[in-house]
Amino acid sequence: MEALGKNMWIVPGGHIPAKSNGHEPEMVSNDKMSVLNVSQEEADLNITIYYGDDAPLGPYNLKVEARRVRKVRFNDLIDPRAIPLGKDYSAVISSNVPVVIQFSRLDSSHSHKAITGTMAYSESS
Amino acid sequence: MEALGKNMWIVPGGHIPAKSNGHEPEMVSNDKMSVLNVSQEEADLNITIYYGDDAPLGPYNLKVEARRVRKVRFNDLIDPRAIPLGKDYSAVISSNVPVVIQFSRLDSSHSHKAITGTMAYSESS
Amino acid sequence: MEALGKNMWIVPGGHIPAKSNGHEPEMVSNDKMSVLNVSQEEADLNITIYYGDDAPLGPYNLKVEARRVRKVRFNDLIDPRAIPLGKDYSAVISSNVPVVIQFSRLDSSHSHKAITGTMAYSESS
Amino acid sequence: MEALGKNMWIVPGGHIPAKSNGHEPEMVSNDKMSVLNVSQEEADLNITIYYGDDAPLGPYNLKVEARRVRKVRFNDLIDPRAIPLGKDYSAVISSNVPVVIQFSRLDSSHSHKAITGTMAYSESS
Repeated sequence: MEALGKNMWIVPGGHIPAKSNGHEPEMVSNDKMSVLNVSQEEADLNITIYYGDDAPLGPYNLKVEARRVRKVRFNDLIDPRAIPLGKDYSAVISSNVPVVIQFSRLDSSHSHKAITGTMAYSESS
Repeated sequence: MEALGKNMWIVPGGHIPAKSNGHEPEMVSNDKMSVLNVSQEEADLNITIYYGDDAPLGPYNLKVEARRVRKVRFNDLIDPRAIPLGKDYSAVISSNVPVVIQFSRLDSSHSHKAITGTMAYSESS
Repeated sequence: MEALGKNMWIVPGGHIPAKSNGHEPEMVSNDKMSVLNVSQEEADLNITIYYGDDAPLGPYNLKVEARRVRKVRFNDLIDPRAIPLGKDYSAVISSNVPVVIQFSRLDSSHSHKAITGTMAYSESS
Repeated sequence: MEALGKNMWIVPGGHIPAKSNGHEPEMVSNDKMSVLNVSQEEADLNITIYYGDDAPLGPYNLKVEARRVRKVRFNDLIDPRAIPLGKDYSAVISSNVPVVIQFSRLDSSHSHKAITGTMAYSESS
């Protein structure tokens, strides 16, 4: 199968809930993205994190093997610096090969599990 | 980085839940939008609010600094007039520079936190 | 403002939860769509409902005033026939003027409120 | 009505929750897709499942009658092999006729029902 998707994706509404309830790791509040790479080539992603009150930071590097999906918690992006909990951020993801990205959130801050998600926004050009 | 996104976005399904349960501010029911501006220029947004039984109202003005994200509660849009709780509305957002907008809702009206969200709709032209 | 949006929208994943818990009307399980019409003309919508095991039914007619939003519970579409609860359906919505449509669901079938939503799918042509 | 939609759809963020609480079948955790086929012809779908740590598997074959919607639990895709619970996967769906696909998840792993969903991603070409 040929490559599917786009080389640029955007998640504007990032916010890792600061509190969690329940067992680790499945009940830990988190923002996640699922990156699908159907191409025959490893995908090399560069992620830039934008903040409300600070300069953008990055790139965070992430690799996704050929013909694999990789689900990543934003909580786990720590180099060059961990994303603070409870703080608004956006992620801009660029890739050398086309990929497809879906965003999801698990919020267990108020005793029960709440979930939401959406396709990320893809830039046509 | 060059500008990313579109100059016009639409959120048809606005509705700020009238009731809330739990601690302020994190458990107050709200509709929110996250506006990402990756350009080198401050974004100047004009928001028009449409209602079911009343004339559209606006513009609400909102600025987003260059290379920053700004998350705004619709509850906090008060000039020219606060959006009533418990009432259906839509938001049409135009910007002088391209931005990317994601919509989210926190509904704590029935004792627990429920969340949902989606990318806003972008107009190509 | 000129017309915004598209003349054709699709919601594939309709399903009105059969059970509800809590006070009427705000806790009654429902599927909803929010239709925004920013044009100067009344929008005249024709909705066709598709089923898994039966012929499509319609059109259901719906009008949205000029420069207004209208939020409609699929539960309230009764002519030519009410949509059965607990049954999968899809909605295809065509409009004489461009509109923008967002879909949402409230599911209170299991004691608490669960919510989800997404932009409907718009057909370019 | 003519065909609506696209011949290729992608759901990157699949993950069937491993645990469930409550009555079967309505409270069993699941990932679902709703496929709408408005054409006059039966839709013949081929689904390929991508994993994080294993080779893609498929095709899973699925038919959707002309002018019908079909809602399918990913849990029920068992030939050539059932999708493991609690494991990340992506789905790439190709169809001989244009269709429209919406994704949804029911997560009852933590005592209450949590739901989310989004339109799947459609490939233009």
